[in-house]
Amino acid sequence: MRNIEVCPTPELVDLYGVEGKIVVVVDILRATSCMTTAFANGIDHMIPVAKLEECKALQKSGYIAAAERDGKMADGFDIGNSPFTYMEPHLKGKGIAVTTTNGTQAIVRSAKADQIIIGSFLNRSAVARYLRSQSQDVLVVCAGWKGKVNLEDTLFAGALVDDLKNDMNYDSDSAITAQVLYNVAKADMLKFLSNSSHVRRLKGLNITKDIEFCLTSDVYDVIPVMEGERMVAMKEVVAVESNGHHKSNGAKR
Amino acid sequence: MRNIEVCPTPELVDLYGVEGKIVVVVDILRATSCMTTAFANGIDHMIPVAKLEECKALQKSGYIAAAERDGKMADGFDIGNSPFTYMEPHLKGKGIAVTTTNGTQAIVRSAKADQIIIGSFLNRSAVARYLRSQSQDVLVVCAGWKGKVNLEDTLFAGALVDDLKNDMNYDSDSAITAQVLYNVAKADMLKFLSNSSHVRRLKGLNITKDIEFCLTSDVYDVIPVMEGERMVAMKEVVAVESNGHHKSNGAKR
Repeated sequence: MRNIEVCPTPELVDLYGVEGKIVVVVDILRATSCMTTAFANGIDHMIPVAKLEECKALQKSGYIAAAERDGKMADGFDIGNSPFTYMEPHLKGKGIAVTTTNGTQAIVRSAKADQIIIGSFLNRSAVARYLRSQSQDVLVVCAGWKGKVNLEDTLFAGALVDDLKNDMNYDSDSAITAQVLYNVAKADMLKFLSNSSHVRRLKGLNITKDIEFCLTSDVYDVIPVMEGERMVAMKEVVAVESNGHHKSNGAKR
Repeated sequence: MRNIEVCPTPELVDLYGVEGKIVVVVDILRATSCMTTAFANGIDHMIPVAKLEECKALQKSGYIAAAERDGKMADGFDIGNSPFTYMEPHLKGKGIAVTTTNGTQAIVRSAKADQIIIGSFLNRSAVARYLRSQSQDVLVVCAGWKGKVNLEDTLFAGALVDDLKNDMNYDSDSAITAQVLYNVAKADMLKFLSNSSHVRRLKGLNITKDIEFCLTSDVYDVIPVMEGERMVAMKEVVAVESNGHHKSNGAKR
């Protein structure tokens, strides 16, 4: 039987190991929620980079540049890190260079994986269906906060483990921890998270609306996937539900 | 208000930061449970070292040498990693050199802390009382398993956070995670842990009796503490309970 394991922070990626696996990168607040939203709204591709300077260089070569540090848009860039930003019509068909405090670092560190896909509550069921249809082991890499673990990424990892518990082994201690945490929190995740210093810090930035949106399951069916250095929308999203109903790639609403 | 934070694996110690803090090192299965048991049974001091060769060198200089790797006693050493071993009368008053897969590594990595004490379920309330009586912030360093997080150390961290929740801030995401996990598991920790691959691996070594003992709260009042390179029994264990009843340092039974 295949395994699903959870790497609680990018700092531990080498220990958990990515080779031969599908890695699901998770940065719920807000990088991977933004990426999901971006592709559901017709962005052509994204280039995630670790450093502000790399993002700046791509901006100079014509890219729209999205840069976030410490939860805020970095100076001199075009857009920040709110999913609502990525719904704007003028971004359709464009390429976006992106760097964030945690999410893009997790992608860069997972480079040796068989495949890297982007997970968020927004595309949760699409990700679970896709993983079921493949054959590799799965590693969920939580982006965390500056190397430390965080609750919201752990909650999503736990949700995914819960969705796949009949399809894969999840006996590693980090996967069990995430699943237990999700089951405690799922009835009211926003309330659960409101105890956390990290979420309180984000609330101070007036992004409660962002947080609520990022905790909503199954808004989109799109799955962003890395192809070399570029992130694109996966073309063959698994389209058939168990009831035989076909779903389209992209926005559900 | 003081803070209590949880570092889920020794790999992240530098990120969480130990300077100015009291570090509680936790390796429930079984290094810190053994250390607690050892001092409660009259061992004079221990020297924790990271490498087998260092332990071997101390053995040659006259120390009793305890070495565990991958859950088993390493070849050529005197004792392994079962708490019951440390109850043997011939060890009383002796010095023991010790190296284990995870626990001693966590101690070595926490060297810059203000103070390093040893926590386990066996001395849980004594540790909580001591921490209440001090003024520094607290970092619970879970030894984990070869750099990965594990359930049993996280459970103890959560128990300690729960014990101190009215005395200290615990709003970091790892402390909240540990406390939630402990509250889910506390009614039957052995059953909760039996899902974990790590505990199944240990059960394969026929140490169920060890595991049950290591999950028992408040068997001893002793607190092992690092003094330079040596671990000794803390002399001034906080002796007065809230009901005014005096407790002695050492074994309760």
